[in-house]
Amino acid sequence: MTYCVGLQLDAGLVFLADSRTNAGVDHISTFRKMTIFSEPGVRVMVLLSSGNLAISQAVLNELKHGDTNHLSEVSTMVDAARVVGDALRRVYFRDSNAFREFGLEFAANFIFGGQIGFESPRLFQIYAAGNFIEATAETPYFQVGESKYGKPILDRVIKPSTPLKDAAKCALISMDSTIRSNLSVGMPLDLLIYEANSLCIKTHVSIGADDEYYGQLRRQWGDRLREAFNDMPDISY
Amino acid sequence: MTYCVGLQLDAGLVFLADSRTNAGVDHISTFRKMTIFSEPGVRVMVLLSSGNLAISQAVLNELKHGDTNHLSEVSTMVDAARVVGDALRRVYFRDSNAFREFGLEFAANFIFGGQIGFESPRLFQIYAAGNFIEATAETPYFQVGESKYGKPILDRVIKPSTPLKDAAKCALISMDSTIRSNLSVGMPLDLLIYEANSLCIKTHVSIGADDEYYGQLRRQWGDRLREAFNDMPDISY
Repeated sequence: MTYCVGLQLDAGLVFLADSRTNAGVDHISTFRKMTIFSEPGVRVMVLLSSGNLAISQAVLNELKHGDTNHLSEVSTMVDAARVVGDALRRVYFRDSNAFREFGLEFAANFIFGGQIGFESPRLFQIYAAGNFIEATAETPYFQVGESKYGKPILDRVIKPSTPLKDAAKCALISMDSTIRSNLSVGMPLDLLIYEANSLCIKTHVSIGADDEYYGQLRRQWGDRLREAFNDMPDISY
Repeated sequence: MTYCVGLQLDAGLVFLADSRTNAGVDHISTFRKMTIFSEPGVRVMVLLSSGNLAISQAVLNELKHGDTNHLSEVSTMVDAARVVGDALRRVYFRDSNAFREFGLEFAANFIFGGQIGFESPRLFQIYAAGNFIEATAETPYFQVGESKYGKPILDRVIKPSTPLKDAAKCALISMDSTIRSNLSVGMPLDLLIYEANSLCIKTHVSIGADDEYYGQLRRQWGDRLREAFNDMPDISY
């Protein structure tokens, strides 16, 4: 499985992805799920993918080397989301019969966001059918993959006004809760913080198992949770 | 949907269930999911059910009014779990063709635990096929229904040595995280705390939306989580 989260804040966008893919527990590998399309000063776009890895990679091939509809030619993020959706539909057109033949589900789910020129940063979730929804002030984040373990902390903390670094910290805690509770989500992590109107990427890090900050965050968060738990009022029933 | 959790501690057992069932968002009702079979001084058994409500109720009818295999006649909890599994199989035998005809899944999932006489308290998860697994020191709890949102806090806190009241508090926090993130899980809650070797039930409460302790726990937990979050070290990337 996988866990990816994308957040749309007033101050910009945050993307976080794990890197574990699996086809049964005896076949667990590390593949990057974050792909960046950017031309500094002009556009920045980030794609996070979950679902069947063959589908994700086929879509990326379409986007990078396909004949039509290049991401570098669109002028709005909605048009860009359509380009991704269309690439997914071409892959579906080519592969879906074979998938059906083998009883496989055509599973694909993308988070896609970025900024083009003077348009505000935008964030989308793109479904297997190639259609998509956009984040709003009420729902400022999208998750794909193993999304439930890490949802409570996002629901409690994230608002559009949350500063970028706090949103990234919250995404990392959400990821930690997921990794602890689900074997199929794993390190290293890809974290990207995009500052609105910068039209370039200043913060993009790969966080490995030995990362000092992440280790500190994990430990302190665990300690504080247990501490908070111990301080809760005793049951009075 | 539903969320139920059962915990097996050295000191006894804790059971917590929500009471929301739904068949689509326009049809949400309140039904109790906790059923108690007890004869003080002799045996205490608690059943939490999730899945299709018609199946759960049919199983309860089998257990309460069926002709064979009464829970009051068995002398070990494993035999009792078999009685529940057999009741489920009789319901399956009667209803599964009709379910298939209408394209419905035969969805049923039970948590079942208790104590009979001098045997230690035991806890089981019973599947739709009527087979079951038992909790161990390494996995001292079972969840059914919407289990993922509330799993991280259980994973961090619950050990066999956790006192009963702390385990109940943890179960309530786990429930709160689930209710906040998932509409299909809702109040009132049924909480039962069983003290090992007491062979009777001293603590069984229904927790409504206006419950003072639960309200206090929710608020304080939310506050402490946000406080803990604010105190986490700032991102250094």
